[in-house]
Amino acid sequence: MQAGDRAEREFHVSEQTLEDFAAACGDRNPLHFDEEFAASTRFGGRIAHGMLTAGFISAVIGNDLPGAGTVYLGQDLQFCAPVRVGDHVRCEVTVAEVDARGRATLETRAWVGETLVVDGTARVLLP
Amino acid sequence: MQAGDRAEREFHVSEQTLEDFAAACGDRNPLHFDEEFAASTRFGGRIAHGMLTAGFISAVIGNDLPGAGTVYLGQDLQFCAPVRVGDHVRCEVTVAEVDARGRATLETRAWVGETLVVDGTARVLLP
Repeated sequence: MQAGDRAEREFHVSEQTLEDFAAACGDRNPLHFDEEFAASTRFGGRIAHGMLTAGFISAVIGNDLPGAGTVYLGQDLQFCAPVRVGDHVRCEVTVAEVDARGRATLETRAWVGETLVVDGTARVLLP
Repeated sequence: MQAGDRAEREFHVSEQTLEDFAAACGDRNPLHFDEEFAASTRFGGRIAHGMLTAGFISAVIGNDLPGAGTVYLGQDLQFCAPVRVGDHVRCEVTVAEVDARGRATLETRAWVGETLVVDGTARVLLP
């Protein structure tokens, strides 16, 4: 693995995705589940949990690059734009740096169409 | 809401929690699901997804403090120690700063017993 290596994967956000995420984490913020409440907010309707997209990024890291056995040391996330039910989220992971101690810094980004929805950086221990 | 306000909530991590999280995010890293594989790693057994604990933190923010309608702007996470199936994870959110534009900085920490498992900072837009 070296700087510049890159993986991407696409995820579909369905009603069931939000239900599964809420079942795991207990986050039932009405912004995600109550259409009437959400319609009154700046988003004009329900949005997905920000941390769901972070989970998608984690899935690319754990499944693809660096892959099985990777250990998460840290992650910075900026939530740039909303993700909605029905969206396809494309997550990109790019290796920025690998050090001699087996640690890597990864650029992590998620997009819906041409819109950057999450930007960030991960620090991992290589498998 | 003002600096120093604080909320906490405890979450139980079961087999079903990991299954629900993986169903939502697609992260089936064998470190979380394959006991034999995980036994050969530095952890000596399976650990929960780091981003699951981040989801717990998100649940405290979205349910309790600041509560319903809070919008996530960003989150920094340091994964300090593993969480395992059967653990109870206590998440604490403390308001560090509120600005005149309705944005807040929150200190976000998660513990298993006396062990800090996740440390970090959230930036949110108040409801």
